[in-house]
Amino acid sequence: MGRNVAIVGATGAVGVELLRVLEAREFPLDALRLLASPRSAGRRLRFRGEELPVELLGPRSFDGCSLAFFSAGAGVSRAWAPRAVEAGAVVVDNSSAFRYEPDVPLVVPEVNAEAVLGHRGIVANPNCTTILLLVVLAPLHARAGVRRCVVATYQAASGAGAQAVRELEDQSRALLAGEEPRPERFPRPLAFNLFPHVDSFLPEEGFATREEMKVVWEARKILGVPDLALVCTCVRVPVFRAHSEAVFLQFERPLSLEEARSALSQAPGVRVVDDPEAAEYPTPRLAEGGDEVLVGRLRVDPSCERGLCLFLAGDQVRKGAALNAVQIAELLA
Amino acid sequence: MGRNVAIVGATGAVGVELLRVLEAREFPLDALRLLASPRSAGRRLRFRGEELPVELLGPRSFDGCSLAFFSAGAGVSRAWAPRAVEAGAVVVDNSSAFRYEPDVPLVVPEVNAEAVLGHRGIVANPNCTTILLLVVLAPLHARAGVRRCVVATYQAASGAGAQAVRELEDQSRALLAGEEPRPERFPRPLAFNLFPHVDSFLPEEGFATREEMKVVWEARKILGVPDLALVCTCVRVPVFRAHSEAVFLQFERPLSLEEARSALSQAPGVRVVDDPEAAEYPTPRLAEGGDEVLVGRLRVDPSCERGLCLFLAGDQVRKGAALNAVQIAELLA
Repeated sequence: MGRNVAIVGATGAVGVELLRVLEAREFPLDALRLLASPRSAGRRLRFRGEELPVELLGPRSFDGCSLAFFSAGAGVSRAWAPRAVEAGAVVVDNSSAFRYEPDVPLVVPEVNAEAVLGHRGIVANPNCTTILLLVVLAPLHARAGVRRCVVATYQAASGAGAQAVRELEDQSRALLAGEEPRPERFPRPLAFNLFPHVDSFLPEEGFATREEMKVVWEARKILGVPDLALVCTCVRVPVFRAHSEAVFLQFERPLSLEEARSALSQAPGVRVVDDPEAAEYPTPRLAEGGDEVLVGRLRVDPSCERGLCLFLAGDQVRKGAALNAVQIAELLA
Repeated sequence: MGRNVAIVGATGAVGVELLRVLEAREFPLDALRLLASPRSAGRRLRFRGEELPVELLGPRSFDGCSLAFFSAGAGVSRAWAPRAVEAGAVVVDNSSAFRYEPDVPLVVPEVNAEAVLGHRGIVANPNCTTILLLVVLAPLHARAGVRRCVVATYQAASGAGAQAVRELEDQSRALLAGEEPRPERFPRPLAFNLFPHVDSFLPEEGFATREEMKVVWEARKILGVPDLALVCTCVRVPVFRAHSEAVFLQFERPLSLEEARSALSQAPGVRVVDDPEAAEYPTPRLAEGGDEVLVGRLRVDPSCERGLCLFLAGDQVRKGAALNAVQIAELLA
């Protein structure tokens, strides 16, 4: 019996990247079924030299399927992921639909690979901002225990989807031509601007955004520290694809700069880019298209005891979404 | 006897803005002398309906001058400000040349106006990132005492001068046309990118940048708290003109969210823009061209005791430089 894989939301930014990552990693599969909404069904996408049709997502879509990637938003996941599980597939869900359910593992393979073992049909892929942070945070936490973590993000347009990337491009052209940019997907113009507003505001969380709380909730679950002290301000910036984060850490136990650097140098999925005098540090352009989370600007934070500052950048579509999902699928196999 | 005013560096981004601010505030003066390097001397700039010539900065430039604004870099200030003082002028210096000298007042008029009284001919204008932060920080510090302040910045191209603004524009056009952007003034491409590198790296400060340390050194001097715990990561972003800052505060004494909001609402130079549900919060576009520092995203930081998060944006060229300098001159008058 062959291994049949489905991708729900195949034509989106993450869906397209999933195809590339499955190809590049030579993921073992016998058949690939691409699924989408009526708007995108009928298109064709290239995979391993063939043009595969994009089919309409429907009741028979998961027949004979052993693995399904979901990347079409929380609503689609809520409606269809349980049906894929019923049909016998294991679901790797890129949406936030099931992330906070106690019996759904939330996995960053470099951090808590063992958590997949407990799945009951669905494994959740964390939020992109969380994944990038945790790949860097986990090896430091293992050495010295994170007491508190403060994060300010610099998030690319890609986090809001392929249309948002085009909106940034269109707005930028308009503004350079002396016209007023028109926000469509974004609440404010993004071209040559930025705003502290990613996802919706949550009155019940003191008007933190859902994106900010995702980082808190998910970091706690993945690290297994239910009261982890973490605060985050999430900001959308006029960058196309990779996210960056300024991070300020305090540890429980002493951790020298050399120990931190050594831990990060050995950590899977991390690349230390930290030679200030050669102007080498993480930037979104450098991170774009790569599998690793780049970390640099490592320095002691003299404003608190056992403090460390760092700056990281990672491809939001790749390690922040598609690559992490495929890594989860590899763990399952 | 009339009041003769000189501007050194009149053709730069801040120089041009100084002219606008002096006009807009109807600053009392009888004659205005515009001074610049050989590269810019000979040009003409409009002021109060007249075309004023830009003269070459030289030994007689300050004869009869009672007030001189310097905005042509630390080297020019070091060489010429003492000569302006000798000639009888009071100097308001926008460079970092004298900021850290104990007998030179460093002034944000909304925060420490009284400090100008002790001047000996030179008053220093703080760094733009510091000014914007302190206008917001000071009223909160007065109420509850800042125990620790963590800042991540989002700094516009204008902070690196008028040429840097053009470089961002040129790079953006190139990139949208499918060409590679060429960095000239910046260490890395800035179009649709960002980098944690503003000013030079300081090995003696653990490779913090000079910009990051300016915020620390200047905040301590202006607030009169020599050991203020403050840490800052400064990041250049592809925005033309206004700076933004994500700020995470811890206080010595309790301060409710309502008290913080009330203190900021009453603070001079501050405008609270904080209605998340209407997508109202500070952005660089909203701050551009304005006199006030915008503050919003006010919320309790649950990751520490007596913590408060906020996000601010202010016009880096205006309140971050030219306006603050003119306000200092108004205090002197």
